[in-house]
Amino acid sequence: MLSREDNEKLCRTGPGTPMGNLFRRFWIPALLSREIAEPDSPPKRLRILGEDLVAFRDSMGRAGVIEAYCPHRGAQLFWGRNEECGLRCPYHGWKFDVNGRCADLPNIQEGDATREKISITAYPVREAGGMVWIYMGPADKMPELPAMEWMSLPVENLHVTRWLQCTNWFQGLEGEIDSSHVSFLHRALDAEHDLPPQFTSYGPPGPVDGAPKLTLKETPYGFVTGSRRRTVNEGEYFWRVTHWLAPMFSLIANHRFPRSGRAWVPVDDNHVMTFGYIFNGERAMIAEENAILEKGSFFPPRIAPGVFTLPDGYIIDTFLPQAHRGNDFLIDRNMQRSGNYTGIHGVNEQDRCIQESQRSIPGMRPGGLADRSRERLVASDAAVVTARRRLLRMTSELDSGKEPEQPRQPQSYNVRAIAAISQHDAFEKFYDEQRGAIELA
Amino acid sequence: MLSREDNEKLCRTGPGTPMGNLFRRFWIPALLSREIAEPDSPPKRLRILGEDLVAFRDSMGRAGVIEAYCPHRGAQLFWGRNEECGLRCPYHGWKFDVNGRCADLPNIQEGDATREKISITAYPVREAGGMVWIYMGPADKMPELPAMEWMSLPVENLHVTRWLQCTNWFQGLEGEIDSSHVSFLHRALDAEHDLPPQFTSYGPPGPVDGAPKLTLKETPYGFVTGSRRRTVNEGEYFWRVTHWLAPMFSLIANHRFPRSGRAWVPVDDNHVMTFGYIFNGERAMIAEENAILEKGSFFPPRIAPGVFTLPDGYIIDTFLPQAHRGNDFLIDRNMQRSGNYTGIHGVNEQDRCIQESQRSIPGMRPGGLADRSRERLVASDAAVVTARRRLLRMTSELDSGKEPEQPRQPQSYNVRAIAAISQHDAFEKFYDEQRGAIELA
Amino acid sequence: MLSREDNEKLCRTGPGTPMGNLFRRFWIPALLSREIAEPDSPPKRLRILGEDLVAFRDSMGRAGVIEAYCPHRGAQLFWGRNEECGLRCPYHGWKFDVNGRCADLPNIQEGDATREKISITAYPVREAGGMVWIYMGPADKMPELPAMEWMSLPVENLHVTRWLQCTNWFQGLEGEIDSSHVSFLHRALDAEHDLPPQFTSYGPPGPVDGAPKLTLKETPYGFVTGSRRRTVNEGEYFWRVTHWLAPMFSLIANHRFPRSGRAWVPVDDNHVMTFGYIFNGERAMIAEENAILEKGSFFPPRIAPGVFTLPDGYIIDTFLPQAHRGNDFLIDRNMQRSGNYTGIHGVNEQDRCIQESQRSIPGMRPGGLADRSRERLVASDAAVVTARRRLLRMTSELDSGKEPEQPRQPQSYNVRAIAAISQHDAFEKFYDEQRGAIELA
Repeated sequence: MLSREDNEKLCRTGPGTPMGNLFRRFWIPALLSREIAEPDSPPKRLRILGEDLVAFRDSMGRAGVIEAYCPHRGAQLFWGRNEECGLRCPYHGWKFDVNGRCADLPNIQEGDATREKISITAYPVREAGGMVWIYMGPADKMPELPAMEWMSLPVENLHVTRWLQCTNWFQGLEGEIDSSHVSFLHRALDAEHDLPPQFTSYGPPGPVDGAPKLTLKETPYGFVTGSRRRTVNEGEYFWRVTHWLAPMFSLIANHRFPRSGRAWVPVDDNHVMTFGYIFNGERAMIAEENAILEKGSFFPPRIAPGVFTLPDGYIIDTFLPQAHRGNDFLIDRNMQRSGNYTGIHGVNEQDRCIQESQRSIPGMRPGGLADRSRERLVASDAAVVTARRRLLRMTSELDSGKEPEQPRQPQSYNVRAIAAISQHDAFEKFYDEQRGAIELA
Repeated sequence: MLSREDNEKLCRTGPGTPMGNLFRRFWIPALLSREIAEPDSPPKRLRILGEDLVAFRDSMGRAGVIEAYCPHRGAQLFWGRNEECGLRCPYHGWKFDVNGRCADLPNIQEGDATREKISITAYPVREAGGMVWIYMGPADKMPELPAMEWMSLPVENLHVTRWLQCTNWFQGLEGEIDSSHVSFLHRALDAEHDLPPQFTSYGPPGPVDGAPKLTLKETPYGFVTGSRRRTVNEGEYFWRVTHWLAPMFSLIANHRFPRSGRAWVPVDDNHVMTFGYIFNGERAMIAEENAILEKGSFFPPRIAPGVFTLPDGYIIDTFLPQAHRGNDFLIDRNMQRSGNYTGIHGVNEQDRCIQESQRSIPGMRPGGLADRSRERLVASDAAVVTARRRLLRMTSELDSGKEPEQPRQPQSYNVRAIAAISQHDAFEKFYDEQRGAIELA
Repeated sequence: MLSREDNEKLCRTGPGTPMGNLFRRFWIPALLSREIAEPDSPPKRLRILGEDLVAFRDSMGRAGVIEAYCPHRGAQLFWGRNEECGLRCPYHGWKFDVNGRCADLPNIQEGDATREKISITAYPVREAGGMVWIYMGPADKMPELPAMEWMSLPVENLHVTRWLQCTNWFQGLEGEIDSSHVSFLHRALDAEHDLPPQFTSYGPPGPVDGAPKLTLKETPYGFVTGSRRRTVNEGEYFWRVTHWLAPMFSLIANHRFPRSGRAWVPVDDNHVMTFGYIFNGERAMIAEENAILEKGSFFPPRIAPGVFTLPDGYIIDTFLPQAHRGNDFLIDRNMQRSGNYTGIHGVNEQDRCIQESQRSIPGMRPGGLADRSRERLVASDAAVVTARRRLLRMTSELDSGKEPEQPRQPQSYNVRAIAAISQHDAFEKFYDEQRGAIELA
């Protein structure tokens, strides 16, 4: 349904690509603050939008994200010494601070003019919501951080994490915003295999209405969707409101569980880092909630810190899901008969089993750019279609010199995903009724 | 000895290639019937002639082999639910039957015209000889199943299996039809390292005649070869008759052991699935025979069910040999001095060690297309030369509109490989004498 | 600092490349004599300058290095039988001797004219210094072996070995000849983590002079460098002299430990075999010395014999370091704070961690051709710059028909790396004083 050209435009995010340029107008989560917890703690290897980077925290506690390689002889700075407010290359001792300034050049004579000319690419860094954010675009276009609710909450109210998914970023986003798959892929077939009742989010109390009525409304930041289900009471509806915040964020309502969302950050064209945030706007997360989250039934999956070798041999520091393509996501075909719809444990595993094996364009590995020229979209794919069209328009506009509006409107991201009972059957009326609960800014 | 162009013509079997077109005129073994033994049992991932497929058995016991990916969003149907006479995609619940018809479309409204247009590629399926066969060619060219003897035997008379070999299909076929390597590669040097005497097949009772006289005769189905050895009795010969049935089948005589053969089914251009059939036309296989076969001295090698990740990341369900390139085929250099010729256990392992490491054309992995431009063929390579020439002619003819004759003559495949003592020293006379035992149709 | 074109010229060594042609004018270490210790012992798989080879020792004790594949059908001769003065292909029994002559052709009739035409590529072989050397160039250009001191020492005076490094050969050579990194990368921060005192080599007795004065002088064989450090005595200097012997050899002074050096032999463009030689010109190595060397603090690293699958699937027999990229060189970040500069055990591991992760040219794996278009060379990189310029000149000259001089002057390689105390502060004067100790020929 999508031309090869448009598909590549949506998917490829390396330097100089249309979507890469668009991403470089937004603040992007790079890693978790707790991964470089202490001053002078070990650096971490990253790849973001196809660029090799290294993150570290200096002696004063400032986070830095700089180019991965020393400008002298190209040695990888990951091996470096994180000491006295800078990361020092172990090969010949060149040292750079979080701003990319060269702090020491022991093998160049004092007074040598070369000294002044040496620096390294360093991206502006902010920390918010338990994450280290970077801005990789032109200096004069640098916006404020987006004002998503969870980014200003105390750390106790948050459960933030990240994990590697072996697909293009856009496949992840499509699954994220497509609510029509929820009642299939994530369906439980018996009580035992369902999520713990207090954490389920996809239906109202009482019997589930299998075919919710969906309404999608474009907004300045992306779009909002309302899904309406009948309740057991005549003339009463259970509404769920979720948001897509361009280009990479989601906010999902969970009426019994803390609110949540994901950010889909391209590693390269075949890998995406999923950042998960689950949060409570009113109180700290409780131990039981965190314990359940770490069991991997929901988001995040069950993960462990580890390294991953990308196909070109570059190694990144990341978190790796324990169920993955290499072990068939630990599928249990007996459980699939009567326990849950897939035989796979965990909401994110269920998503990944699909996304990591969607048909790719010829010549690409599974999980690479999905082949969108051969798909057959239907009415319930409206969210997917809308996001594609919106992103393609934004890249075209940027290409012709028109900057995207979202980075200039960080407060527009301050919205909330909610779930509520209402008598209204039209989304517009329900939205008007709940506007104060949805638009926080 | 072969131009690069002809080499590629013989080896490449993807959609639209000359040899790919030829294969698509024949019924092809896809997997073993017992791999999808029960109605609604788990589906299996296949790749055949470069096409990604999924095999399943429906609630009524019918086998189906359909395209691997759901036409909606390209999700891999392997993750699907095999239920109520169809395989249902877990992403949004689309369901397809063994004929590729769409049996359910839960996310499309009743009455929507799209419903009628949706289907998935499904190949015609037959089951015979313990295998599931598919036909991947044009509907109007679909032939009968070939009438090889073992295909109509009761399952107790058969020992059928399959395993992955990491070479192009044609390398496997060449080894199969080249009897001149047998007295080198498969030679035993002492009694202990030989195959159990009751299962050896390559010589007459008594001392082995090292240089058998070989005669090859082209036939409608491919060719028949007769190899003549002297016996201990003056004027008496031990004749062995084997067949190549184009394009992928062999029948080999084993005078003390049940008859056997292999089918070489291209997975992609660098991998081939070897289907092995060992059978007894007169009686059921006995437990001792099956036990010896499973020890891997002969065919099949010692194998275990498993998954294999092809170089492009696609995963297939298969059987994997325990001795392979990654462990140097468990070669024992001491055994090579005095036990057997290679120091490698098992006839198939001996073949695979050669075939998986033959020099490839530049830029290809070992086991990829062998570099046939640098070889030096000799008189004893007649079988190899004949098969190449025959297949090249068949592809050229098909290319210019002339259909191959073999698919129209399924009864011509009903021949038997035999071994017998005779006074005749000319193959033609021996063949005439034994015609009734060889041509079963 | 180097154009892409010159970079490729330096790095690529396959048949027909400029640097490949240059290497093919020199004798090259292929493997260790002890790897094929016994007559008729198992053959070894090699790749050198991009060519697939097999090494064996025949029944008379002669070493042979021949093409990896049988000319008949391309079977890999590694599987062959090493018997009665030849390596016999296991497929059809063709047999070749160490000179590439065909010693037996059992499947070709006596008198067949083909018999005379069949041979296999075999490279001239010498054994010296515990190594098997081969010459891969034109027969009429074959020189004498280079006369490096250690090559004529008794085997007891030597500690020779080899191990695989996953980089282009030139990255290894650059690290070898760049003494300016020694006081950074290999620096010990406390006494415990330093090399055992009797084996350290990089400074004089007493406090280390952090910024040695370096002088480089081109020589017929390559260059010699003198590094001068102050000692605790006024007007006294500690001089260290090292050599680069084009294209691939080094000789390094270790004033308390036996002398040493390395040869950097290209496997293919992304892998290099490091041959290490540590030797004592006066006496046999003692057990304590060998024991310390095998602990891997210095050269060689801690290694084990093993096989390695190159990216194109070809397998080589080699020695593999136990610390490597896949395990982050066993880095210990606590040790890096206070023990030694890198947190990595072993001088070679410290080198490899850098060399195997230097930024590669776009599209190449880490360790592939380093991207020398983006580096910033400084004055202390003089050795690196000189070697590049010299090699580029040599390849250009060869390209235009001028043969390199070094192969014609094997005695010029008979130099020694020394370390000595002197009153001279100018390298020329120090060199004149020590000429007899340095130039052995």
